[in-house]
Amino acid sequence: MPLSPDTRAKLKTVSTATLTTALFKRGLRSQFVQDVRPLNPAAGTMVGEAYTLRTIPAREDLNPIGVFQNRAHPQRKAIEECPPGAVLVIDSRKNARAASAGAILVTRLMMRGAAGIVTDGGFRDAAEIAALDFPAFHHRPTAPTNLTLHQAIEIGVPIGCGDAPVFPGDVMVGDADGVVVVPAAIADAIADEAVEMTAFEDFVIGRVREGRSILGLYPPTDPATTEDFARWRKEQGR
Amino acid sequence: MPLSPDTRAKLKTVSTATLTTALFKRGLRSQFVQDVRPLNPAAGTMVGEAYTLRTIPAREDLNPIGVFQNRAHPQRKAIEECPPGAVLVIDSRKNARAASAGAILVTRLMMRGAAGIVTDGGFRDAAEIAALDFPAFHHRPTAPTNLTLHQAIEIGVPIGCGDAPVFPGDVMVGDADGVVVVPAAIADAIADEAVEMTAFEDFVIGRVREGRSILGLYPPTDPATTEDFARWRKEQGR
Amino acid sequence: MPLSPDTRAKLKTVSTATLTTALFKRGLRSQFVQDVRPLNPAAGTMVGEAYTLRTIPAREDLNPIGVFQNRAHPQRKAIEECPPGAVLVIDSRKNARAASAGAILVTRLMMRGAAGIVTDGGFRDAAEIAALDFPAFHHRPTAPTNLTLHQAIEIGVPIGCGDAPVFPGDVMVGDADGVVVVPAAIADAIADEAVEMTAFEDFVIGRVREGRSILGLYPPTDPATTEDFARWRKEQGR
Amino acid sequence: MPLSPDTRAKLKTVSTATLTTALFKRGLRSQFVQDVRPLNPAAGTMVGEAYTLRTIPAREDLNPIGVFQNRAHPQRKAIEECPPGAVLVIDSRKNARAASAGAILVTRLMMRGAAGIVTDGGFRDAAEIAALDFPAFHHRPTAPTNLTLHQAIEIGVPIGCGDAPVFPGDVMVGDADGVVVVPAAIADAIADEAVEMTAFEDFVIGRVREGRSILGLYPPTDPATTEDFARWRKEQGR
Amino acid sequence: MPLSPDTRAKLKTVSTATLTTALFKRGLRSQFVQDVRPLNPAAGTMVGEAYTLRTIPAREDLNPIGVFQNRAHPQRKAIEECPPGAVLVIDSRKNARAASAGAILVTRLMMRGAAGIVTDGGFRDAAEIAALDFPAFHHRPTAPTNLTLHQAIEIGVPIGCGDAPVFPGDVMVGDADGVVVVPAAIADAIADEAVEMTAFEDFVIGRVREGRSILGLYPPTDPATTEDFARWRKEQGR
Amino acid sequence: MPLSPDTRAKLKTVSTATLTTALFKRGLRSQFVQDVRPLNPAAGTMVGEAYTLRTIPAREDLNPIGVFQNRAHPQRKAIEECPPGAVLVIDSRKNARAASAGAILVTRLMMRGAAGIVTDGGFRDAAEIAALDFPAFHHRPTAPTNLTLHQAIEIGVPIGCGDAPVFPGDVMVGDADGVVVVPAAIADAIADEAVEMTAFEDFVIGRVREGRSILGLYPPTDPATTEDFARWRKEQGR
Repeated sequence: MPLSPDTRAKLKTVSTATLTTALFKRGLRSQFVQDVRPLNPAAGTMVGEAYTLRTIPAREDLNPIGVFQNRAHPQRKAIEECPPGAVLVIDSRKNARAASAGAILVTRLMMRGAAGIVTDGGFRDAAEIAALDFPAFHHRPTAPTNLTLHQAIEIGVPIGCGDAPVFPGDVMVGDADGVVVVPAAIADAIADEAVEMTAFEDFVIGRVREGRSILGLYPPTDPATTEDFARWRKEQGR
Repeated sequence: MPLSPDTRAKLKTVSTATLTTALFKRGLRSQFVQDVRPLNPAAGTMVGEAYTLRTIPAREDLNPIGVFQNRAHPQRKAIEECPPGAVLVIDSRKNARAASAGAILVTRLMMRGAAGIVTDGGFRDAAEIAALDFPAFHHRPTAPTNLTLHQAIEIGVPIGCGDAPVFPGDVMVGDADGVVVVPAAIADAIADEAVEMTAFEDFVIGRVREGRSILGLYPPTDPATTEDFARWRKEQGR
Repeated sequence: MPLSPDTRAKLKTVSTATLTTALFKRGLRSQFVQDVRPLNPAAGTMVGEAYTLRTIPAREDLNPIGVFQNRAHPQRKAIEECPPGAVLVIDSRKNARAASAGAILVTRLMMRGAAGIVTDGGFRDAAEIAALDFPAFHHRPTAPTNLTLHQAIEIGVPIGCGDAPVFPGDVMVGDADGVVVVPAAIADAIADEAVEMTAFEDFVIGRVREGRSILGLYPPTDPATTEDFARWRKEQGR
Repeated sequence: MPLSPDTRAKLKTVSTATLTTALFKRGLRSQFVQDVRPLNPAAGTMVGEAYTLRTIPAREDLNPIGVFQNRAHPQRKAIEECPPGAVLVIDSRKNARAASAGAILVTRLMMRGAAGIVTDGGFRDAAEIAALDFPAFHHRPTAPTNLTLHQAIEIGVPIGCGDAPVFPGDVMVGDADGVVVVPAAIADAIADEAVEMTAFEDFVIGRVREGRSILGLYPPTDPATTEDFARWRKEQGR
Repeated sequence: MPLSPDTRAKLKTVSTATLTTALFKRGLRSQFVQDVRPLNPAAGTMVGEAYTLRTIPAREDLNPIGVFQNRAHPQRKAIEECPPGAVLVIDSRKNARAASAGAILVTRLMMRGAAGIVTDGGFRDAAEIAALDFPAFHHRPTAPTNLTLHQAIEIGVPIGCGDAPVFPGDVMVGDADGVVVVPAAIADAIADEAVEMTAFEDFVIGRVREGRSILGLYPPTDPATTEDFARWRKEQGR
Repeated sequence: MPLSPDTRAKLKTVSTATLTTALFKRGLRSQFVQDVRPLNPAAGTMVGEAYTLRTIPAREDLNPIGVFQNRAHPQRKAIEECPPGAVLVIDSRKNARAASAGAILVTRLMMRGAAGIVTDGGFRDAAEIAALDFPAFHHRPTAPTNLTLHQAIEIGVPIGCGDAPVFPGDVMVGDADGVVVVPAAIADAIADEAVEMTAFEDFVIGRVREGRSILGLYPPTDPATTEDFARWRKEQGR
């Protein structure tokens, strides 16, 4: 079930806050990647299928500086094979004491057309990554090379990232609030619902800015709100 | 003991750093709301009486999406009833894994004339809130709806916020360093003292920028400092 | 083994990420000061020898507001005696619940020609410090006076800072990723190596921006990369 | 809806593990008081309705040693008024740096016929409390008087305890694994279900000790298991 | 490289403290499973090859109570297929807020001849597991069913457990201090070295109990110590 | 101001709970060593002057296994020079990921007549240490050698231990609740006061066990309590 261009486009127009509410309505409460933030908030909303990379704690003898001479090393392979439009999601075991990646790899990923990168650890060269027009999310900047603490071990398996379950192909959406994981099977439905919710929220915030109370408006328990909203949609063409 | 306009005005001109020192001198060491920051540092110093909202962990059966249809729900009620000039202070049990509120509610609170909002959890729609000319303080952005983890349960009771005790009516002051809780009964005295301290600190930082040592200057153990300060106050009209 | 002007100059041109890799190659994995960030990222790379200040938890009877009347108080003494070109490094036991210092002391330190200041706790007056053209690193802003929780106890001894060992005279280097501690005895060699590594990384990132794969390029397992790099160095005069 | 003697008796025979599973089946995933343990594991399973006490961070001027001379102080009042058969549940904001109570108060509570006491902080005089034939649960021993950090503020309100929501009257059950909160309205049904589940689990563990595989047995997907269990129940009279 | 009976026997006679020192001498500093403890310290030293089970955060729709009806569910499969003499090691992402397993599964594992079980989360039915003559290690007791937070996803892959890297086949050794991971390839050599070190430590502790100073004795920088030890070995037949 | 035999004897008869209250009355709220516990609760109350050892994070090149061949290494020196009757207090920066010491050193310390040992990290060989008739306190067992993370750097300086300030010569008292630091200058007065308080508490707990309410009894706001207590003291000869 690849992510359709239509759903991708819709998800670009909604917020992670709205998406978590849509997921909550379906009983999904654990899809938010906890405690990550965008390095470049101006890079726009990130949308793409998850392409996963799993790490384990680094054993010193297996992680000398020379390991990257092996072109099949999972970290390098992930960077070179992550499909265009996808998001590379790294399970760094919520450990930002060493980097998950740095500016060279993230730039390469961007050049290859990926939609973004997420780690529940940290990136090095954070200022350079923040200067890219590319959505990247992490916990905090951190200089030490990944070999210090992380061994990339496996690609394309279900992982945890920031306490959220991420299955390959799930749709990752990221904005200033953080990153949410939309299960692949419901991505279309969630996108549709979120677009509807967003229209209503945009209507509501406009009314609130005009001075209206939220009572009866949000949620729209007052029937007049429903009529007002219908009128607004027509005016706005939404 | 409502907050007088005079004290409110004075507190707008002093820093939370100065206030914590004034409180420390009176033996109050626990009045700083730990680990919160302003979403919009440009919104200026926040000053207002605490209007409190308490939450408990959410029990799933009591927190379906429909609960907000009840206009008496404490979260919505708090937003609609927080007095103008007051600060809504939310005890979110230092848990930012789900939001304490979002842009619609915070905008409504601003429109109603509140002086600010503080949570020791997080807000969703953080970028929108950061764009408001309204002081809001939290631990970090977080997308999930509050129903996921927080049930608003009580208004107007003493609470903890970021490990600080907050009694309704205490004066909340916030700036780039964070938020301090000034007990209502001593707000006038603390404001007066802080204004005096601020004058001295402004004098000191000017002298330090001119190259003076802090020895004898800060604290003013050198009698010449006292004379110099008196002269400066006259010149500055402070 | 004082820091030579040449090594200081070289270290200003390299990143903490590169330095941690150079240290990693020598088996040094613990030299990164964990979880601190620059208050003013525009202040440029910090380089200077460590001048250390150690704190212990404050005992209330020993830390009334009057202690700073003693000109020999280690905190004040450290500010007035830290050598020009050095970095004041404060062991605050990773506790940011009270400040390690504020704007007056940091400004004085800057005026005296220090190269920067680092604490694994927090600073008060953080916005003022952030406005200085002076490298300062901390965990987070925090208003309470240092007397609340920290007693400065000793100057010029080996300390821990953010889980890194810091010996007086070690070379502290800080940038947007954080702060790294380069042992004094290897500072020259590490600086030389980092300059070389930086040239190569700059070359690599240029090629990556042109669309090249990292395979064979980074690390340069493809002999063509080595030739390409040699050519680039000649062109760039590096 | 007071706790019936029958339900109380049933709950004494089941484990918190079984109860959390029964609650999970109803969508209740947050009813376990995280990270508390029994001081005296030999005191048996604790069962009783929650009688709640809420604390906030202590403000120094409001918490001198003399406060307990006030007989209406909520901490003392809670000890003297907690009904026989009830469990005193203290919201200590998961802070064990000062005590929630000590041996004198816990002994008094026991003498008054309470069913137990739970805090998500710690008790002082822990060894003495551990020697009582009385179920008490906390996070860890801690000597400092509660006045250091905790101000008891309110009795009989919904609270959080160890991240679980506790409403007055909910049924607290505690054993070696910790404490679970059974919502009052479903206590009878949960007790019945847990008794059934316990019978099955006892049957299963017996078969496992005889060498049987869990496949087909647990859960009983093999129809023979169902027959075997029916036979066992008849034999055991359960 | 299966674990030889000889190496297994040797490892049963040495401590995890001694083993971590032997590993440290080879540059391996990260092999200790942090913050786990034995449920039954009397069960003796655990030795066995790692048989690994990996979990990810539970997604609610994929983890209803019915999942265990699938006999191929990785948690159940792991219990039924873990080889005799092996240790089941569970990567629970250091999350003890829900259980990794309970008494029925652990009992079955014991009956099948496994050498032990380790999780960096917690077990439910902890008192029952503690009563088994079977080495089990966890962080703390916890009642909630694993489905609440953990989805078992993969068997036989490299994992992290308590911040240590665990490859299938590595030798897990556990005692009162916790659990250490000995890489399979060096298990024989480490066992030999640890046996030697243990002989020396036993000699040393005997001398210390007789009143000798550790200077010159431990380490044996005094040549007399070496002679004394040689004599002792002969006497002891070690 | 050495610890007098009389004060030492008195402190052996009082609890850390009582002592923290006596300290609290003098405004000392930070003297409890947070989150340490006795390895052998049966070893009795520990009382002795603090003899301090400070550690910093280990730098790999300075901490090979050979360092202990240097008899002047601070860790070994501390063990051999800690005065009889004193308590060795180790500032391990609250890091129990590697050991502060093991059974050989602790046994030697015991043989030399020390009164106990405290670390805010952990001990290795914890079961052996727990079997000694010697008060030892730590956070948790941990196998890795101290060289992995801790470098002992200085003896006889003020330190932090478990967030408490410890000056050499302060009186350390430890029991089942943990360890409290009594400033040397007030040790005699605190001991006297604690003995008095203990007599009253013993009286109170007796009355509570007889069924008396705490109201009027604890604190003794009812004058009859004072008379009753006077009578009890006479009877008990206390």
